[in-house]
Amino acid sequence: MALMDADASALLARLIRDVRVAALGTVRQGAPMVSMVAFLPEADFGAVSLRVSRLAWHTQDMLADPRVSLAIVEGDDGRADPQTLARVTLRGEALALAGEGEPFERLKAAWLGRFPASAVTFALADFSFWRIVPRDARFVAGLGRTFNLSAEALRRAAI
Amino acid sequence: MALMDADASALLARLIRDVRVAALGTVRQGAPMVSMVAFLPEADFGAVSLRVSRLAWHTQDMLADPRVSLAIVEGDDGRADPQTLARVTLRGEALALAGEGEPFERLKAAWLGRFPASAVTFALADFSFWRIVPRDARFVAGLGRTFNLSAEALRRAAI
Repeated sequence: MALMDADASALLARLIRDVRVAALGTVRQGAPMVSMVAFLPEADFGAVSLRVSRLAWHTQDMLADPRVSLAIVEGDDGRADPQTLARVTLRGEALALAGEGEPFERLKAAWLGRFPASAVTFALADFSFWRIVPRDARFVAGLGRTFNLSAEALRRAAI
Repeated sequence: MALMDADASALLARLIRDVRVAALGTVRQGAPMVSMVAFLPEADFGAVSLRVSRLAWHTQDMLADPRVSLAIVEGDDGRADPQTLARVTLRGEALALAGEGEPFERLKAAWLGRFPASAVTFALADFSFWRIVPRDARFVAGLGRTFNLSAEALRRAAI
């Protein structure tokens, strides 16, 4: 695997921390399904959390098959060549979290810090947190600068 | 299926016409894969075109299984609640187009009009156009405003 230089590593960390919504890929009846989700990375990039409704297609998909892909794409600033936008795709398994206890309360506080408008979802029984633990990542820092990263290499970018 | 009002229909048309990059979902070794692609819709929303390299993972995936999902998401403008961002997911099959002939030349001209920086790809043998014909679409116009659209309903939004 190509090693990231300090610039690429800093770009990857900014991308994962600054972007608020991502494209979640699931398998639905054997075919691909992509939907938009809000997400929150853990500080060490060891996992990414989502808050989704059991009524949503992607949640039904994750219940049937926990394998997911999550693409985080730099916002399009209207530059001449959008192919130079930075993006990273995480791949891993998604796991539903219990809606109580100390880890839940910590995550709830962090989530509301980023997404205050989602407070209403904590009064709805069909919403829960899901945690994606990346198995690997594919980071495109720009044209021709692609890095295949292990989970460990991804975590090194968080430092 | 819920019918779109004129406002939702206009929002959908703007979304498909104004956004330049989308999240392409493919199936890779049975698991979901999502990557960023530039795209160009046909005027009547009967198809969406991509220009991709045979060396790219998503192209290998489409060669193995043509079923794809394409999520087009409104740019994040920093609003309080990103869940209100408009987005649409198209689902259908992707087909590689021949790199010559009248349809190719028309598409090439339109593509270069939108993505002038991609001119270099027309000198590279590994790039080709792929055409996705939507079978259906799922349009989220904002919180709680979700529309499941047939291909025909999607085309009506183009008028």
